[in-house]
Parts: sequence; structure tokens; C-alpha cells
Amino acid sequence: MIECPPMRLRVDLLPKNNYEDLVILVDVLRASTSIVMLLAHGAREVVVARTAKIALATREEGDILLGEHQGMPLEGFYHGTSPAELTQIKGEGRRILYVSDNLPRALSRIGRPQHLLLGTFRNAGAVTRAALSLAEREIAIACAGHARAEALDDTLAAGFLAKRLVRSLGLRTDLQDATRLSMALLKAFPDPQEALWQSAAGQLLRRLGFTEDLALATLISQDTVVPRLQDDSGEAPNLFTFKPWNA
Amino acid sequence: MIECPPMRLRVDLLPKNNYEDLVILVDVLRASTSIVMLLAHGAREVVVARTAKIALATREEGDILLGEHQGMPLEGFYHGTSPAELTQIKGEGRRILYVSDNLPRALSRIGRPQHLLLGTFRNAGAVTRAALSLAEREIAIACAGHARAEALDDTLAAGFLAKRLVRSLGLRTDLQDATRLSMALLKAFPDPQEALWQSAAGQLLRRLGFTEDLALATLISQDTVVPRLQDDSGEAPNLFTFKPWNA
Repeated sequence: MIECPPMRLRVDLLPKNNYEDLVILVDVLRASTSIVMLLAHGAREVVVARTAKIALATREEGDILLGEHQGMPLEGFYHGTSPAELTQIKGEGRRILYVSDNLPRALSRIGRPQHLLLGTFRNAGAVTRAALSLAEREIAIACAGHARAEALDDTLAAGFLAKRLVRSLGLRTDLQDATRLSMALLKAFPDPQEALWQSAAGQLLRRLGFTEDLALATLISQDTVVPRLQDDSGEAPNLFTFKPWNA
Repeated sequence: MIECPPMRLRVDLLPKNNYEDLVILVDVLRASTSIVMLLAHGAREVVVARTAKIALATREEGDILLGEHQGMPLEGFYHGTSPAELTQIKGEGRRILYVSDNLPRALSRIGRPQHLLLGTFRNAGAVTRAALSLAEREIAIACAGHARAEALDDTLAAGFLAKRLVRSLGLRTDLQDATRLSMALLKAFPDPQEALWQSAAGQLLRRLGFTEDLALATLISQDTVVPRLQDDSGEAPNLFTFKPWNA
């Protein structure tokens, strides 16, 4: 009889570059939240690019252009990436070009593990089920962070996902300190909105008037969509295409 | 009238290399705790080295040799660095040579800021007072971490020190997420021993039978000693000498 080694779980407070199996990338404010919502509202796929130039070079007829720089919409784009605004987009069946600094930076650092999913509060149930179904040896929850530093919102969401996975996997010991730390934050923030409110990303959005984003970003398991990074080999290395994963 | 810029406060979950003003280095299990206790018990100074070879090369008559590797005493050394054992050392007026992996690694990364102090639960009151007295522009609390990853024990102690400093400085906003995260852990662990118990470093020490270390490491403000890194220019770059700071 072959004995299977137990599934490993790790939480990284910032993205690392040593993943092989499955990564859940968490960028609560806002990319994970917005992309989950866009796909949940029927968009065919979301193509993430670091700059408007890269996005515009790949533009095809019918594409919807969304972009932000430090929270604000990009000039000439359809509009920004605020979750509160995304609900108004008629994106059904269409391709979204999505420009953001933070997610592409994290994706570049992470490289190409076997499976890369976007996770956040909004798809907590679905993304953890998908991870358990796809991973073979290790589930890594990687926080995108904010301005290259640890982010309170991402760390809390990572703890939220980790706690579900710990329960599903029946893990008890052998958790790394970063995993325990992220899960401990759940006790400190029984209402995740409070953490988003305090976070640097949340403070920036509040100053810009996007307070509703914080509430929308913390609706637990509101959506069942799991954005999965597609194998883009052949395409430009600076483009990251996400489609809904189907069990 | 000259307007003074407010004192900045930061918490780094792992040591960085961009400090200029004042750093409180936190390595709860065990270097910060043990060195505070050694100096509190009357040792003249503690010289930290990464290897036994480096320590033995600087040995003088009367020196006491302490050393550990992954929690266990080094062969041929007086004994290990367990706080529970340190109380038996007759170190009064003597120089201690202290071998440890973790602290020298953190110290090498940090470089030489204007002031470097060791902080932990045991000297919380004293080290925060010293920091407020010495710093001019910025107080950085740097966690040493464990095995090059974030450590639960260090992060909690950093939050404990940060909370006192936030109160003293009257800071409200402009705290980085890592600072908020460390302070939030205090709510999750009203008893710091619970965090040490869960931490990777604590689990290692428990397996080795050093359970008492965890209790000794969490006695809040038990000691009033503040170990301060001396200017070692001229000496070997791999030796780090700590003496008690006097106000």
C-alpha cells in the first residue's frame, strides 16, 4: 500500500518565487475582489496587464478596458476597477482588459506554478474547494501585499482561507508561524471590514471616496467563481489571462 | 519656530537593511530574552558570535562560554542559552561569549544603525523608554524571525512594544500594515505564552524539554536592562558586543 504524504499548507505574507503546485493569490483591495466579481457577472475572461500600453497593444473589438493607478481610473479607459462600479459594467460574454500595478507584480514574482487561483473573502468557499480538488502536494496562500509590504487585508483573508483548509485537511501541527499568525488575526478582527478600514490600501480607497469597496470586498462566499490563470505560453509574458475554473 | 517632524514608528516582521536611526531587535526565543537576563544578573557584557570558532578566537581568561545550535548546547561550552539555566550562572562582572545562529544573522542584515537595542517582553518598559530617549526620527522594531521566516513570538512582542510606543508618541494614523498587524495579535493572544507555545521556536524548545523558557520569556517588564550594541569598529565584523544602556 502506498502511503500518501499529507497535503502541505503555507501562507506567505508576501509573494515568494518557489511555488510548484498550487497557489491562491490574495489581493483583496482590489484585484482578487474585482476579478471575481467581473467573472461572476459573466465576463468571458479577464486579461491583467501592468500598463495601459501593454493592454492597448492586445486590444480587440468588443474588449472592455478597465484600469487603475493607485486607486484612480486610468485616463481614456472605460473606467476604474472599483468593485462598487463594476456591477454596472455590461461585460457578459466579453473580454476584460484590466490594468493594475499590484497583481502583475505579484504574478511576475510567483512565476508559473502548476495551478494559480485568485482568492479572497468573496469566493472563500469556492476557492478553497477548488484548491483541495486541484492540489497534489501543497496549497500555498500568497498575499499580494500593498506597496511591496505586508498588507493587513490580504493577511486576514489568507488567514480566513487557511482556517478553512486547516479544518478540511485535519491539520494540527506543522503549521508555519506565518500561517498561525494570519489565522490568529481572525480573533482580532471578527468583522473583516475593520481590518480593511485600518489597512493602508483601505485608507487610500477611503480617501478617494471608494468606501463601498470595503464592504463589497468582505462579503463572505458571495460568489462561487474561481479565477484561474491560463497557460499563456506564446502570448506576451506581461499578460495574465484569468478564466473561471470549472470543477 | 522650527516645527519638528513627528517620530516615525515601524515594525518589520523580518530584519531589513535600511535602518538609520534606532532599531529594537526582537528575538524572544531566545537571544533577546537570554541576553537581557544575563546583563540583569550582572554580566559585564555579552559578545555574540555566529560560530564557536569565532567566539573561541576572542576568548580571554574569565570569559563564560554559552552557545546553542538549534536549541541545544554546543559541545565543550559552559552550557546552552536556555533562560531557565542562565539564572544559575555566576556571571557577575564577567564577559559572556554567546554563540547563536539567529541573532548574528539578523544583526548582519541590519547593519549599523545609530542605535541598536535588544527588546522583548522582559524589558518592555525599559526598552521603549530607552528608544524614546535615544531616537531622533524613527523607531524601528525589527523581528529576528525563526529559520529566515516570520516568527509568531517575535511578531507578538513587536506588537507589544509598538502599542506602548504608539501610546507614548500619540500616533494614530500613518501606521504601516505590519505595525497594525503586530498590534492586532495582542487581541488574539491575551496571554503571550500561548503564542510562544504555538510558535515554531517554542515547539522546538518544548520538544527539547525547555518548556520553562516560554514562561520566563513572557514575564512582562521583569528586567530593566536594555542591551545596546557597542561600536565594535576595529574588532572582527562577526562579533557583536552588548552592554547595558544607562539613561
